[in-house]
Amino acid sequence: MGGPEPLPKARNALRILNGDNPLNAKIPYILISPSQIIQAHTILKDYVDQYADKAVLCLGGIGDTMRKVAESYGYRKAYTTTDVLAWNSPIWPFIHVSESDLASAKPVDFSRTPISAIFVFHDPRNWGVDVQIMCDVLQSGGLLEGPYVDISTQQSNPIQVVFCNPDLLWKSDFPRPRLGQGAFKASFEAVYKMITGSEYPYVQFGKPTRPTYDYARRVLQNLLEESYGPGELPHMYMIGDNPESDIAGANAAGWSSILVHTGVYDPTTGPPTHIPSREARDVEEAVLWALDRTLRSRP
Amino acid sequence: MGGPEPLPKARNALRILNGDNPLNAKIPYILISPSQIIQAHTILKDYVDQYADKAVLCLGGIGDTMRKVAESYGYRKAYTTTDVLAWNSPIWPFIHVSESDLASAKPVDFSRTPISAIFVFHDPRNWGVDVQIMCDVLQSGGLLEGPYVDISTQQSNPIQVVFCNPDLLWKSDFPRPRLGQGAFKASFEAVYKMITGSEYPYVQFGKPTRPTYDYARRVLQNLLEESYGPGELPHMYMIGDNPESDIAGANAAGWSSILVHTGVYDPTTGPPTHIPSREARDVEEAVLWALDRTLRSRP
Repeated sequence: MGGPEPLPKARNALRILNGDNPLNAKIPYILISPSQIIQAHTILKDYVDQYADKAVLCLGGIGDTMRKVAESYGYRKAYTTTDVLAWNSPIWPFIHVSESDLASAKPVDFSRTPISAIFVFHDPRNWGVDVQIMCDVLQSGGLLEGPYVDISTQQSNPIQVVFCNPDLLWKSDFPRPRLGQGAFKASFEAVYKMITGSEYPYVQFGKPTRPTYDYARRVLQNLLEESYGPGELPHMYMIGDNPESDIAGANAAGWSSILVHTGVYDPTTGPPTHIPSREARDVEEAVLWALDRTLRSRP
Repeated sequence: MGGPEPLPKARNALRILNGDNPLNAKIPYILISPSQIIQAHTILKDYVDQYADKAVLCLGGIGDTMRKVAESYGYRKAYTTTDVLAWNSPIWPFIHVSESDLASAKPVDFSRTPISAIFVFHDPRNWGVDVQIMCDVLQSGGLLEGPYVDISTQQSNPIQVVFCNPDLLWKSDFPRPRLGQGAFKASFEAVYKMITGSEYPYVQFGKPTRPTYDYARRVLQNLLEESYGPGELPHMYMIGDNPESDIAGANAAGWSSILVHTGVYDPTTGPPTHIPSREARDVEEAVLWALDRTLRSRP
């Protein structure tokens, strides 16, 4: 880790960027644009052309947060679990929907509004209700309370199902990793298989899938061209705490990977399941190493 | 159903029992004792000898209802999901525990109180948190936040896991069957397998499992002996709405089975997956037929 070398080139470069502010001080004058930030669900912008005016079910998150995100991406008919419960709460008899959630619901009759796509934006708050609603939507061809359709004979326009994050585990402030969206997907798949006897095809985005790394590269390429005109991206680095997502995906995409010790991966439990280009104590050390290597490789 | 025969013997017997009240009137003077009622979780009384003074986690139900039921069975250290969340809510970062739930929580330090058994009394209200807590308890040998144990090398006293109801689907007032405890179990099994690579052994009670039918028979036998002294039970009848649980179990136990049309089974969707001795429009018709057949078989 770290090594004896104080990474002088990188530290110097940051000092110039920050006007001699030390790295750990606040950096008020480097603005970060939303277009520079990629979350697991950012890639859903790629579906807007197809579903902008169709009803899409956006799962995960609290209250109507995901609707707001979906609308900001351009989806004009984005609905949430809360909207479904506000329409017909007996769809999941085990839930009490709070007054504040009901107040945020968008009134819609789902028995007359076919859902064309299910986007799992974020980790569902209550797995049972979301698994139930997913099964209901898929079994009845999009129309809740509608007759069941035989998916194997359905000719066209199957309902698109997209998961944005395959992480089985993630690191919160609890001492052990917590179950993530990948565990929710496993739950949905097991239940759907049991009640229908078949598997429903879906698209999986998020680390370590290749489309997410390609998307990130595209975003950086656009940023580079907007800022400096046509040019080629330098070598790509991925910094992450999860060997099975961050590191596996970076290795597969041909990027350099740096595994930090401040998250999911615990170095006391043995070597990581996917070997990174380098390990680092924390994100600062990782950034400095990547910057230094990039700067050293230039004339 | 029903046929031309007005089931005169059965109707007559009920008329005598009820003092000429018609069957659908209120029957105020036939008292039903709690010992006559069997719910899916009633069979958990059989574990009280083993776990009366050990910490057991009781899943399902609302607030502390299941704790009260467990305590009425004789469990002196019965805990719920709400108790775990009140101890350390970051164990499931996606939940907001209501003030009223917190007020009903029993204060306990689960990092010092090993859980010896997990009883899934009823359908969990929020699958995610209960799957997470089950995995946590099993991975760390009962002590939440404790180090993970290797279950395959664990010598003695593995944590007992009991599910009380395997129903994948059940009928509520929603027009389509809803997911039940069997779907929750499928969700737990899929996730546990993904994070540990193995399957956790569990006991499954409830219809159609044989222990539940044997338990019901034992309860009826006790009731008969308490009321009339030693004697043999007459032929057993099972009335139910679910072919895969009620009817399958009764057929396997050698009971007569009567499938009613007021619940999960919908006669318009084709023949039932398990063929009953008889179908009946509703419970009344089923009871009358069984009574009539029993009375006719006697001198």
